[in-house]
Parts: sequence; structure tokens; C-alpha cells
Amino acid sequence: MSEALDLGYARVDLGREARQGLPEIVYGPGKRVGEIAGIVTALLARNTGPVLVTRVDPGPAAEVRERVPGGAYDPDARLLVWRPAPPVAHTVAVVTAGTADGPVAAEAAAVAAALGLRTVLIRDVGVAGLHRVLAAAGDLRAADSVIVVAGMEGALASVVGGLVETPVIAVPTSTGYGAALEGVTALLAMLTSCAAGLTVVNIDSGFGAALAAYRLTRRASPAGEEA
Amino acid sequence: MSEALDLGYARVDLGREARQGLPEIVYGPGKRVGEIAGIVTALLARNTGPVLVTRVDPGPAAEVRERVPGGAYDPDARLLVWRPAPPVAHTVAVVTAGTADGPVAAEAAAVAAALGLRTVLIRDVGVAGLHRVLAAAGDLRAADSVIVVAGMEGALASVVGGLVETPVIAVPTSTGYGAALEGVTALLAMLTSCAAGLTVVNIDSGFGAALAAYRLTRRASPAGEEA
Amino acid sequence: MSEALDLGYARVDLGREARQGLPEIVYGPGKRVGEIAGIVTALLARNTGPVLVTRVDPGPAAEVRERVPGGAYDPDARLLVWRPAPPVAHTVAVVTAGTADGPVAAEAAAVAAALGLRTVLIRDVGVAGLHRVLAAAGDLRAADSVIVVAGMEGALASVVGGLVETPVIAVPTSTGYGAALEGVTALLAMLTSCAAGLTVVNIDSGFGAALAAYRLTRRASPAGEEA
Amino acid sequence: MSEALDLGYARVDLGREARQGLPEIVYGPGKRVGEIAGIVTALLARNTGPVLVTRVDPGPAAEVRERVPGGAYDPDARLLVWRPAPPVAHTVAVVTAGTADGPVAAEAAAVAAALGLRTVLIRDVGVAGLHRVLAAAGDLRAADSVIVVAGMEGALASVVGGLVETPVIAVPTSTGYGAALEGVTALLAMLTSCAAGLTVVNIDSGFGAALAAYRLTRRASPAGEEA
Amino acid sequence: MSEALDLGYARVDLGREARQGLPEIVYGPGKRVGEIAGIVTALLARNTGPVLVTRVDPGPAAEVRERVPGGAYDPDARLLVWRPAPPVAHTVAVVTAGTADGPVAAEAAAVAAALGLRTVLIRDVGVAGLHRVLAAAGDLRAADSVIVVAGMEGALASVVGGLVETPVIAVPTSTGYGAALEGVTALLAMLTSCAAGLTVVNIDSGFGAALAAYRLTRRASPAGEEA
Amino acid sequence: MSEALDLGYARVDLGREARQGLPEIVYGPGKRVGEIAGIVTALLARNTGPVLVTRVDPGPAAEVRERVPGGAYDPDARLLVWRPAPPVAHTVAVVTAGTADGPVAAEAAAVAAALGLRTVLIRDVGVAGLHRVLAAAGDLRAADSVIVVAGMEGALASVVGGLVETPVIAVPTSTGYGAALEGVTALLAMLTSCAAGLTVVNIDSGFGAALAAYRLTRRASPAGEEA
Amino acid sequence: MSEALDLGYARVDLGREARQGLPEIVYGPGKRVGEIAGIVTALLARNTGPVLVTRVDPGPAAEVRERVPGGAYDPDARLLVWRPAPPVAHTVAVVTAGTADGPVAAEAAAVAAALGLRTVLIRDVGVAGLHRVLAAAGDLRAADSVIVVAGMEGALASVVGGLVETPVIAVPTSTGYGAALEGVTALLAMLTSCAAGLTVVNIDSGFGAALAAYRLTRRASPAGEEA
Amino acid sequence: MSEALDLGYARVDLGREARQGLPEIVYGPGKRVGEIAGIVTALLARNTGPVLVTRVDPGPAAEVRERVPGGAYDPDARLLVWRPAPPVAHTVAVVTAGTADGPVAAEAAAVAAALGLRTVLIRDVGVAGLHRVLAAAGDLRAADSVIVVAGMEGALASVVGGLVETPVIAVPTSTGYGAALEGVTALLAMLTSCAAGLTVVNIDSGFGAALAAYRLTRRASPAGEEA
Repeated sequence: MSEALDLGYARVDLGREARQGLPEIVYGPGKRVGEIAGIVTALLARNTGPVLVTRVDPGPAAEVRERVPGGAYDPDARLLVWRPAPPVAHTVAVVTAGTADGPVAAEAAAVAAALGLRTVLIRDVGVAGLHRVLAAAGDLRAADSVIVVAGMEGALASVVGGLVETPVIAVPTSTGYGAALEGVTALLAMLTSCAAGLTVVNIDSGFGAALAAYRLTRRASPAGEEA
Repeated sequence: MSEALDLGYARVDLGREARQGLPEIVYGPGKRVGEIAGIVTALLARNTGPVLVTRVDPGPAAEVRERVPGGAYDPDARLLVWRPAPPVAHTVAVVTAGTADGPVAAEAAAVAAALGLRTVLIRDVGVAGLHRVLAAAGDLRAADSVIVVAGMEGALASVVGGLVETPVIAVPTSTGYGAALEGVTALLAMLTSCAAGLTVVNIDSGFGAALAAYRLTRRASPAGEEA
Repeated sequence: MSEALDLGYARVDLGREARQGLPEIVYGPGKRVGEIAGIVTALLARNTGPVLVTRVDPGPAAEVRERVPGGAYDPDARLLVWRPAPPVAHTVAVVTAGTADGPVAAEAAAVAAALGLRTVLIRDVGVAGLHRVLAAAGDLRAADSVIVVAGMEGALASVVGGLVETPVIAVPTSTGYGAALEGVTALLAMLTSCAAGLTVVNIDSGFGAALAAYRLTRRASPAGEEA
Repeated sequence: MSEALDLGYARVDLGREARQGLPEIVYGPGKRVGEIAGIVTALLARNTGPVLVTRVDPGPAAEVRERVPGGAYDPDARLLVWRPAPPVAHTVAVVTAGTADGPVAAEAAAVAAALGLRTVLIRDVGVAGLHRVLAAAGDLRAADSVIVVAGMEGALASVVGGLVETPVIAVPTSTGYGAALEGVTALLAMLTSCAAGLTVVNIDSGFGAALAAYRLTRRASPAGEEA
Repeated sequence: MSEALDLGYARVDLGREARQGLPEIVYGPGKRVGEIAGIVTALLARNTGPVLVTRVDPGPAAEVRERVPGGAYDPDARLLVWRPAPPVAHTVAVVTAGTADGPVAAEAAAVAAALGLRTVLIRDVGVAGLHRVLAAAGDLRAADSVIVVAGMEGALASVVGGLVETPVIAVPTSTGYGAALEGVTALLAMLTSCAAGLTVVNIDSGFGAALAAYRLTRRASPAGEEA
Repeated sequence: MSEALDLGYARVDLGREARQGLPEIVYGPGKRVGEIAGIVTALLARNTGPVLVTRVDPGPAAEVRERVPGGAYDPDARLLVWRPAPPVAHTVAVVTAGTADGPVAAEAAAVAAALGLRTVLIRDVGVAGLHRVLAAAGDLRAADSVIVVAGMEGALASVVGGLVETPVIAVPTSTGYGAALEGVTALLAMLTSCAAGLTVVNIDSGFGAALAAYRLTRRASPAGEEA
Repeated sequence: MSEALDLGYARVDLGREARQGLPEIVYGPGKRVGEIAGIVTALLARNTGPVLVTRVDPGPAAEVRERVPGGAYDPDARLLVWRPAPPVAHTVAVVTAGTADGPVAAEAAAVAAALGLRTVLIRDVGVAGLHRVLAAAGDLRAADSVIVVAGMEGALASVVGGLVETPVIAVPTSTGYGAALEGVTALLAMLTSCAAGLTVVNIDSGFGAALAAYRLTRRASPAGEEA
Repeated sequence: MSEALDLGYARVDLGREARQGLPEIVYGPGKRVGEIAGIVTALLARNTGPVLVTRVDPGPAAEVRERVPGGAYDPDARLLVWRPAPPVAHTVAVVTAGTADGPVAAEAAAVAAALGLRTVLIRDVGVAGLHRVLAAAGDLRAADSVIVVAGMEGALASVVGGLVETPVIAVPTSTGYGAALEGVTALLAMLTSCAAGLTVVNIDSGFGAALAAYRLTRRASPAGEEA
């Protein structure tokens, strides 16, 4: 059986779910309403898991939802979701340095939630006022993994990386100006963090961080069973 | 009680093990034999877990081992280890694109092993000959996580990321010349991979990838218990 | 006889066709409708081969076609063509990694077709789902040359380069965000591909790739005759 | 049958010749004499075509040749060759801008020759003295393809690209200082050449250019037969 | 006497003419119509030489000319001029590679003309068709200096630099896309030209090149007198 | 009287002390022992304040001290000092993130001390173990200014900037590898710190930071007197 | 007592004033009128010092002032201020190279004034006409600190740094085009100034420079008292 | 008659002198003693003007002079000269910012002198002590052109550009560390100078600046004759 469906405007990978255990997530920008609706319809018909479309503005989102019923839209995350996944036993904390990092954090949290993870959002705890992140240390340590969303110099990732022992996924954001270089500075800073064992995803990729967190739940042989 | 011991030449963080559950790992370059020996001695005396020193050449490694007995040295990984950790139920596959990526992969594998992870090393399966990585797909899928070590254009990370559902940690290496820009090209390529949910560490940081894999085993509440 | 015609707003190279065997192709951006029409008219009058104008939007394209009859317009490729070339015995496969690479691929295919090449378009076979490109391997190997169009990390070029023995021309696209650096990452990655003997053209230059493919057909002494 | 032979220090791709019609070429740097000898021995035993090792210095080259008889060494190209290919009916002209581009051109020419191409070397015809390249125009036009090797601003590629209608493969070199940025300037300049349809390989990659030229000879259906 | 007049919105350097022999030229962008008019009025009243305002769009230009009579406006150059300088015995040739370099060349030529230089404009002689620049060699050699305006790879500067013995001032333009990096590639290429003794000004700075040409006419002791 | 003494190999600025109130400090690299001795001798003879030579290795330092008696050498700071300044009432804390930042911190502290500042050195308090910098908060707040010396991601500057209200001068160091880009990452990160009002000096410039701290003591009208 | 107030859209740091002696300053961009009003209201209610909002356009500024009475708006600086600080005995000179640097200088001066500093604004004294900055030397030397605001090549910072002995804070601006690289060139130039002891803040950060100047007034033990 | 002599290791351009009026200058690095001697011998035999070889170390220089009598060697400039040109009526001032810029200035001055220009060397007048460059203003204004040699932030070029009306050729040097980026910062700063009409050559290219100055003397019709 062919795993890919050629819709003319896109070749939909219908086999990822079965083959890899990961949902096929649709990147919205550059696709027309009709194309998005067509791809979503195909995925809903042929697969069984959640169907997500990222970075969709409210107007097109409403149009798509009219054509494909049953979808939910999160305007902060700019995310469309059909058939969200059942809960998995993994809590991911999404923590931001400043207000401007909010939209990226919202995407991370909404994608993670649609994939079944419990999410805790901890906002605005940048390191210029350390008491804020220290006050959140308990919540951070209680989580199974942490997504750190920060722009400018991205120092929050290093501080969080030194507070918890669980996986830390750092998302640099394009927040800032001048020497922030549209997120490149935060990216480089997170990659050279003095806190060991951090990992990093692309600038502004809340989606990528959420998928990385979801992969944490897909271990072939979870610790609880084998040990 | 003070968590940091000031040796004059270094302030040793004796509390990380208790505080964070992660071992304090010593970065070798720029430290003299006597300094390394002093730090290792302090960590062995005050902590209970593994003590590692990275990027040590054979000559100094032998001298340090004379002064602090009980250590093992891996010349490929350039790693000194005392008191390796007991095994944990997590297998990490370390996979390389080419022969030149070997030393970074060796560091990743040796650090992971010293921290108790089972490691499987899969060498030389760059994507210019796809049958090699496809032949390894079973081993890759059987692992709990995968560390991909690749230089040049780093395409192996994307291919592996599309094959497995578990966490993939990509390590760009400085292998290559010209437009490889000493690893920056592989770094950027891995960060923009079309395979969703990959995470990336610093160029040539086998150590960082191993620590990231170790963090995967430190979930406060493993899936097996909670679900 | 003078080979260049000075129209005031442009000096038209009328001799390239005779001198070099390559058509003079007009780059549309920054030229007014009247200027494009004037240049096309001059080339149609003095040369005998195809006349192409690239990167023209539908509005100006319609105006130019009113002034200079006989032209065809391809809105996906944004290409105007008069007097397309007769077929040559060379099939070029144009293959893309994702939907967003479509416009660049369309330009490549349309320019190649206007120059007489047979073109096969294979869409949306990015390496995150390897089965898609493997399914296309037969078509790729059957072609006389392959143009690979990919943004983000550009890994498709390496995979295709390892599948076929014929010339592979890689076109990086500005698809992606953040660390994709508007196509620079794909460009660098393709230049450092582990697949030997790939060649690369400028970012988003579907036109350049098509011309490079056309040059493949202009060998002074084709293999079939000399051997 | 397995296509890859694991020698411990390398996984030799024995199937490329059969699978792709391209020889497996060994990159010398970072490999020990014994490792090179082992890989060469395996390739000679299992394959039937040419075996090449690039970027080998005279000392190690002599040692490898002692261990694996029958090899030839070209000190200018730093290339080891066993079992060179029979001639194919394709002449590639290798043209350089200046004296300092010589070693890269030598590698390109020697690899091309070992793969069976006829090679013509045209040295030192940089555009600051145009009469030199114009004097060579006949030789350039007579060739089936041209490899242009130039550092600094790389302008020779544009001039040659405007003189011939056949494939032009540009190799930027790290010749020059200051704003030459170790070849990056020539690379960028060649990619943005005003001469249409040039293609570019990595900085200093004479090897890559030669392979690209070799691919030109592997067309499934040569023009001479089909037209 | 104070050499600078503080208008509140600007401190006008009234002494440059007397002090340095160079006119004070006003950079238009970011200044309001009233501010430009005020500065021009002050310069006309206190100085005796030409008064120029660069990069002014037609609308504001018309308004300024209403407020300060006697000015001329060149829409191609976007230049306002009052009291142009008397002719000096120096011919500068302004030569462009392509149509898109036109506006920068127009600024260079118009500023040079306003400062009294004879200017010859030679358009569209890019090196992809060498016969065009060779046909212009006589005009180029007859000039006292040459301004080369070119974007993309900027190779025209090298070719012209090898044809004439007089001063060559290269102006990189932001013409091109992708690897042209908004003029940075042409800038770097011109700085590393193989033609000796070229000099370079900022990207798109037709104004800067014209001033540099004007400086050529200000030698304290011209050759003709001293020798 | 002439303020500058031309020694042939250098033009010594003898007037800076009188003119600007800052000592003329000699940059050692690239100067021969005899030249350094000559400059120091001139400064000792004509000025009255401290004379410093930076970045001198032990061998040449000993030779210079033989020729110009009365100097002291600090091998950690690689600094030569004659006639150190009397104490001023300003304490500068020099704080480092890691062991590798030591030499830069030593230069900062030694230059500051030679200029009369009280210096407190706080080592190895990187943010991966926050308790270390928090334990030092009292010392940091007690100082009149703080110099933060950090490489890699430079996050210590943000944390210290949020702890104290006094001037913070951040010195990025070239500590780290890969994405640390030889100090550029730390530099960019410090410039975009979320802690307001930090200032930054050049990479590895302990000397520059010390001079900046010294300028803090040179206020024409100190707050205590004027208010 | 909790130092941070979570308003939902922001976590307001109410403790910075008490904890650090620095006011919490609100960055306007990306915040809605209602959010700004809410944050300002909270800060006015819980703190006692000045409340500032930076980079607010006139329209939103008027709306915020309607909701939160008592605020003043400076349209040149785009700054909202409530409850400006009482004067402190520190004069900061803000000096600009050109007219285009005006808005950044206005922000620096207005923030400094709102924090109680006396400010002197010296405009348009770029080094191409040295007499302008030399004429201002007296004012510059009389100030307790100097903020230098300059784009393009930023040379004014070096000249001022050589004229005064007090702290010099350099602000690179994004003024200029082409090789000015949107302020990066001025930034790098200021960091490598030949004038010793300059410090630098982010591109266009008038705010950052003003805060750095304010820190100069917060010395725990001013020189006048201790000496 | 052929204008180019092929020596095997180089193609000597014998026609530049007749064709372009500029001497062919040999770039030393990468050429063997025998090769340099061969090229020099050919140029001496076939041309009539000066023969120069740049960047030759003392050892090889002595060997070349043994083989080709009559040459002079300047160790500061690392320049070999045979048959220096007769004087021309043009004085070029070569001015440096600091001691470390000396070798580049020496090359500029020695090449200019060998080509017949009168040269005045003004050392060590960096802008941190403005009185130094102001003291030299008379000498600078008396010259027919000025070569400014400066590293770090290169501000001297702007100051000199504002002092003289004659041509100013700026040579950025690789002096400095960290953010100096091996001369790139000075290069960018000089290109964006606020002083109008400066021109710039490659980093460390004293040779290029001297040739540019020489071109100033080659005007077809000098001002003195035509006016």
C-alpha cells in the first residue's frame, strides 16, 4: 500500500503514524485554506491520531474549521487541532524569560497538550530578577521535562539547566533588537551554556520543542518497566 | 554546610550531585595535572557518584592516574573515569556519518557508559549510501535514544530523525573544510532539519550529548509508574 | 557588425545566441513593462531562438503580452516565453523537498522546458520520510540529470546525490526560518554534501539550475560521436 | 550480500560502483597509513574500477604504496591511484586564475584523469590581463566541460561562463588574504555570477569538481544517440 | 568666527568649503522638507560653492524647490542641486554591469557633474558578454578616472581595472539575491580583485564614488605644474 | 612644548596624563624588549604617574626589568608595573564564571590595582550552580563597581547585573569552543542582557575593563561634594 | 511577601526598587495599551520611585495617559514617565555624531532625566569636521559622564574617549547603509576603540546607556565620602 | 608577438607595462626562490620599468638577489626591487594609527617609492590623542594624496578624510584582537566613514594602496594642462 497521498499541491505522508509513531503535523504558512482543508481531511480519514496545523491566523483558521468540522483553534498558539491525543503520563514545564516570548511558549504548550502531555506554563521569570525563577524551582523540578523559551541573551536556559536534572529543551526566540540578531545570539548562547546536557531547537520553534518533548514519552522501553 | 570547595585554582561544586542529581564533570583543557588531581580527589572524597575528566591527552592522563589511583582512561574518548555509575535501563545508540566523526562519538559513548547507560556504537553510515543507515534502522529503533554525530552537511540527523520516534540528539562536528565552516554548517543544518523534534548540542560536544542522554534517565516520575 | 543594441534603458546582447549558443534571458525585476516589451521585441527581431523573461507578476505579464503578441505566461513559474525551443534529447528531473519549494521548482522546470528539455517534476519527497524519495529512485535514475530543490537543511541533495550517477544540480531555497538564514544554511549544506560531485547554484535560482541543465546538452562533441 | 564491509576503523561502501556507477573515493586526511592500506586493499579486491585516495602527503603515500603495490602517486595533486579507468570520450579543461590556485587545479585534473577523462590544463589566465583568457578561448570552447579554479574575487568564472556554452564547474579557492575570507568571497561571487548556468562546488574542492565532471559522462542517454 | 550653525535640527558645517575645499553635501533621508530647506538656505547664504541634497524622492524634492528657488532635480539620481560648480578638466567614466545598477550610477554621475566633472556614462557592459566592455575600452582609457558600478559578483571591476591605468573606484551595488547578500558579496569581491590598485567605496554609494573622483581633481600640486 | 616624543619605533604620548588624567598604558605584543624599555624609560622620565605594560611574557618581562629597574611583574596578569598609583577610595569586584576565565580576570585585577583601586577577586561562580554567585552577593553589593569575566554564553553578567545597582562592566572571554565562536557569542549575549544598564568591553580585554573602572573614579565632581 | 505580581499578561517585578535600588522600566513594544496601563498602575501603587515605559508611539501613549493620569510623554524619545526622580548630582553629556542619531540620543537623555540626572545634549559633532567636537570639549570635560551616540563607523566614540577622563558609554546606532550592517559596524568599531576604557551598550539602546549612567550614581560609597 | 610568457610554474604577463602602463608586480608568497628568480629575470629582460616582488622574507630575498643581481631589499617592507622608477611629481603621505600598523605602512611606502612617488611617513598618530594627528595636518595637506593605515576601529581614516581635500586611500589592518575580527571591523568602519569620498583597499594591503596612489599619477590628461 502506498504510504503517501499525492493531492497535487502536496504529497501527504500517511504512514508516519504507523511507521514512526509520530503524527504528521502540517506547517500552515504558504498553504491556502483549501489546501490545508484537503490535507487535514486526508489525514483524518487515513490516520487515527491527532491532526495539527501550526501558525495559522484567525481568519484562515475559521475558514478551515468551517470546511473540516470538529477542529479547535488556539489563537495565542495560532494552532488548529483535530482529535487531540489521550493524556500520557509526562508533565512538561514551559518557562519563559519575558512577555515577548509568550507566543512561542504558547505554541510549545498547545502542541504538547494536543499530543497528550500535561503542560505547566511559568511565565516571565528572566534572570535579571533571580527570585522569580528560584520561586519556580519546585514546579520546574516536579516536571518530567522543561522547555525554556528565551530571547535576547537566553541566560534563563543556563540557570534552569543548573536547577533540574531532567531533560531541558531550550528554544531561542527572536525577541530583542540590535546585537540580538533576530534570535541568533540566544541560539548561540544556549548552545554554549555552562549548564551541561541542555539541548536546543531552532529559533522561535515552539513546535519543535514540543515534538522533542513528545519524543521523550516514546521510549521503546521505559525505565519503570526495565529497571 | 558550604557546597563549594575553594581549592585556590578552582571552586569545586560539591553539591551538584545532591542538589541536582547530576555528577560534576571536569573539563580538562587548561588545567594542570596537579589541579586535575586535586579536583578529582576532592570529588571522590565528598561525593559518592562517578567522577569524570574530559579531553585529557594520554600523557597527562597517565600522570593524573598515578596521583589518584583507581581511574580508567579511554584514549579514543580522551576520558578519565573514577567510580563509574551502576547500569541504568536505557540504551543510547551513538551513530556517526563518517570516519572523521569517530573521536566525538567515542567521547559521547564513553561518557554515557561511565554514567551507566548502555551504549551501542554504529559507525560510518552517512547518507550518501542510504543502504548503510537503513540496514541499521532496527538497532536505531531498538534504542531508547539516539545520538547522531555528523559533520559536513549533517544530513544523517534528518534521516535518523525520520526513522525513529525516540529522542534524537544531534551533535554537529567540525569535520569537513571550506563551506563546512568548522562545524557551523552542520550545526545550522541540524537546527533546521525537516525531521521534527530533533534537538542539537554544541559543535564537537560528545560530552554534551551524553549528558543530555543521561538527563533522559532522570525523569522524576517515569512513565511506567504514572500511567 | 555591432553585437549589442543600446535601447537607452538597456544594452541588449544580440550576439550571445550566435557567439555562445545560449539564449539571452531577461531578468524581469526592476524593469518597466515598456522596457521589457522593447527588449523582447528586439530579441525576437534579431535572434532566432527562444526569448524568456523571468520573475514577472501576472499583471505586468499580461501587459507585456498585449504589446508583444505570441508569448505564453506560466503563473507558477512567473515566466514569459516566446518561441520556445524545439525538443532536445535530455530529460531533467526536478525534485523538491517540500511544498514551499514549489515556486523555485516551477521556475526551473518551465525554463528548462522552454529551452527544449523534457522535464519531470517530482514533488515533496523530503528525507524525513525516506520512502518517498526511495519510491522515486527509478524516475531519478532514468533522467539524464537531476535538479534538487530544497530549503531548510537541504539534506535531499545528499540523498539524491547518492542515488544517481548523473549530474545533480542543487538549488537551495529560502524556505524555513530562524537558523535557516534565508537559504544560506541550505546553500552551505549542499556545498559540503557527503555525496561527491554535486554542484550548487544560487539560493532560489530555479533559472540558474535550468540553464546549467541546458549547458549539459551543449557539449561540443557528444560522447556518442567521439567514442 | 552485504554491500558494506566493516573494517573496524571504517565501513567501506563496496556497493557504490555497482549501485551508482561511481567509484568510492577515499578521503585521506585523518586516516592512518594502515587504515588507508586496508581500505584500498578491500576496494581492489571487491570492486573492479579505479581506487583513489585524495590529499595524501608524500611520506604516507610512499608507505601506503609499499603495502599495496601497483599504485601511482601524483605529488602536485597529492593523489594516490590504483587501476585508473579506461579513457572516456570527454575532454575537461581545467583553467586557473593564478599560480596559487595550482594545487587545487592539480587535484581536479589528476582525479579527472584517473577516472578516464581527457584533461587540458590552462594556467594563470586571471582576468586582470584579459588577453590571456581570450587567447585560451579556443581551447575552452573545444572542451566538453570546463572547471574554473580561482580564488580572491573569482571573476574568471564569470568570464569563462560567458565564453563557452558547455557546463562550467567553478571551484573557489582559499587563495588571497583579508577580505578573501579564506575562499568564502570567491564562493559567494561564483554563486552570484552574471554568467548564467554556472555551477559551484566547495572551496578548494578540486576533487568535487572532477567528480562533477565525471557525472557529465554518465548520462543514461547521450545526446548523440537520441537526437 | 564659528564655523558651525546650529539650526536646532542640525548643526550645519559652514566651514568645510573654506577649511577643506570640499562642499558640504546633505544626506536627504530622515530629514523633513522644512529641515532640508533650512539647511540649503543656510549653505547658499554662507558658502559660495555648489549645494547638493542626495536621495530625495520627487514629492519632497518639488516641495523643497518651491521653498528654495533656483534648484534643479534629477529624478534618476534623486539629487537636488543648487549652484553647480564650474567645469574642471577631469573626465570620469561611470560604467555599469547591468540595468539594475542604473540608479547608483545615475547618482554617481549627477553628483560628479554638479561638482564640475565631465561625466561619460557607459551602461550595461557586464563581463558575461566581454565584447561589450572591450568595445568600450577606448572610452574607458580616455577618461581621467573610472567609476565601476556593479552588483552580484562585481567582476566588471577586475576587468576594467586590468584595462586602464588611471584611478578605478569600484561601487558595489545591492543588485542580486540570495548569495549576493545585499551587496556584501560584490563588496568583498571588489576588495580582493586580482587587478591591482582598485579602490572601493560603500555599497550603493554612488555619492561616495563621485566625491572620491572629485578629490582626484583637488591635488595641491598637479603633475603638469611640478614636473 | 611637544606632547609626543618620537622614538623612531613609537611616538610616545607624554601628554595624556596632564591632558586627560589617564596614564598612557603600553600594549606589549609586537614590541621588542628594547622598544618597551625605551618607551617605559621615557614615560618614567617625563610623567609622574604609573607606567604599565600589558601582555608581556615572563622572558621578555625579565629582560625589560633588567634594563629599567624598579618594575614589578605579575605573571598571571602578564603585566609590568612601575610606580603604581596611590590608593583611591573605590573597590572593584572582579568575578569570573569559570577557571578558564582566570587570566583575563587577573589582568583586570592587576591593572586596576596598579591604578590604585582596591580589588576583590571572586572566582568560579558560573550560573550553572547559582548558590555560588548568590553566596557572593554580599561581596558584590559591597563593591563600588563589578567587572564580570565570562566566556561561553556569558550568562553570569545578566545574573550579576540583576543583583547589584552599581556599574557592571562585562568582559566576554574566548573561553569555549564551537558555537562560542572565540568569544563572539559571549560578547553578543552580554550586549543583549536582560539586566538593564550593563556595559561591555572587547573580548578578553581585562585591561579595558580595568580602565573603565578607573574612569569611574575620575568624575570631575563626585556626588558627595555636589549634592 | 511575594516580590512579583502576576497580572496574567506579565509578572511585574515589584521588588527591584527595594532589592536593587533600580527602577523597573517597562519595554513598550509588543504590549497592548491595556497591558501597559495595568503594569504602570501596579508599579505606581506598590513602588515609590519613577515609572517609565520606553518606545511607545504617540497614539498608544495618549491612550495610556488617559487611563493612568499623571504621566508625561516625550515624543522625540517615545518615552512615558510617571513620578520622575528627584535630581541627583551627576551631569551626563549626550553627544551625537549626526542628525540621524537624534532619536536614540533623545531616548538616552529623556530616560536619564527621568531618573534624576542632569543632561546636556550636544548634537551633530561627527569627526569629519573635528572643530565641532573640539569646540564641545569643555562641555564634555565638565560632565560627570558622557554617552556617545554614533552610527556608521562610530569614530566619535574614540575621539571623545581620548578627550575626557570620565566614564564614556558608547551607543552604536543603526544609522547608515550597506557596510554599516544596521549598526553592527559601529558596535564592533566602538568595542575595538583605540581609546582605552570605553564601554559599549547594544545597538540603538539609548535606554541602556541611560541606565548605565544611572548606575554610576549608585556607588555604595562615593569617592567624596571615603577618601 | 605573444604578451604572456609561460615559464611552466607561471604565465608572466609581459604586456601589462605596454598595454596598461602599470608594472607587473610579483606576489611572493607560495613561490619558490627559483620561481621568483625566473619571473624577475624574464620581466627584466622583456620590460623596461621597475620589477617588484612583495612579501618576501629575508632568507629567500637574499637567495633571489644572489641569482638576479642588482636588486635591493627592504626588510621592513619585505620588498624586493630592481630598476626603481624615476621620480614623478606626486607626494603621498603614509600615516599610521599605531606601532602595530608599521609593517603595512612600510610596504605601502616602499612600493610607492619604487614606483617613483615621493613618500612621507607619519607614524603613530591614532585619534585617542588627537593632538598628534592635528600636529601632522600641515604635512597631510601638503601631500598630493594620503594613505591611512589603521587597525582596530580605523577611526583615523575618518579624521584624516575630514582634514584634507585630496584623495584618501584607507588600508585597514589586522591589528587588534577579539571584536577587531582580524581587520574586518576596520574595513567595515572605513567603508562607512562619515568623511565623504574616502576609498578603501583590502585588509593589510599596503601594496594595493601604493598601486592606487600610483594610478593617481597616470591621468591621461592632467588638470594643469587641460584647464
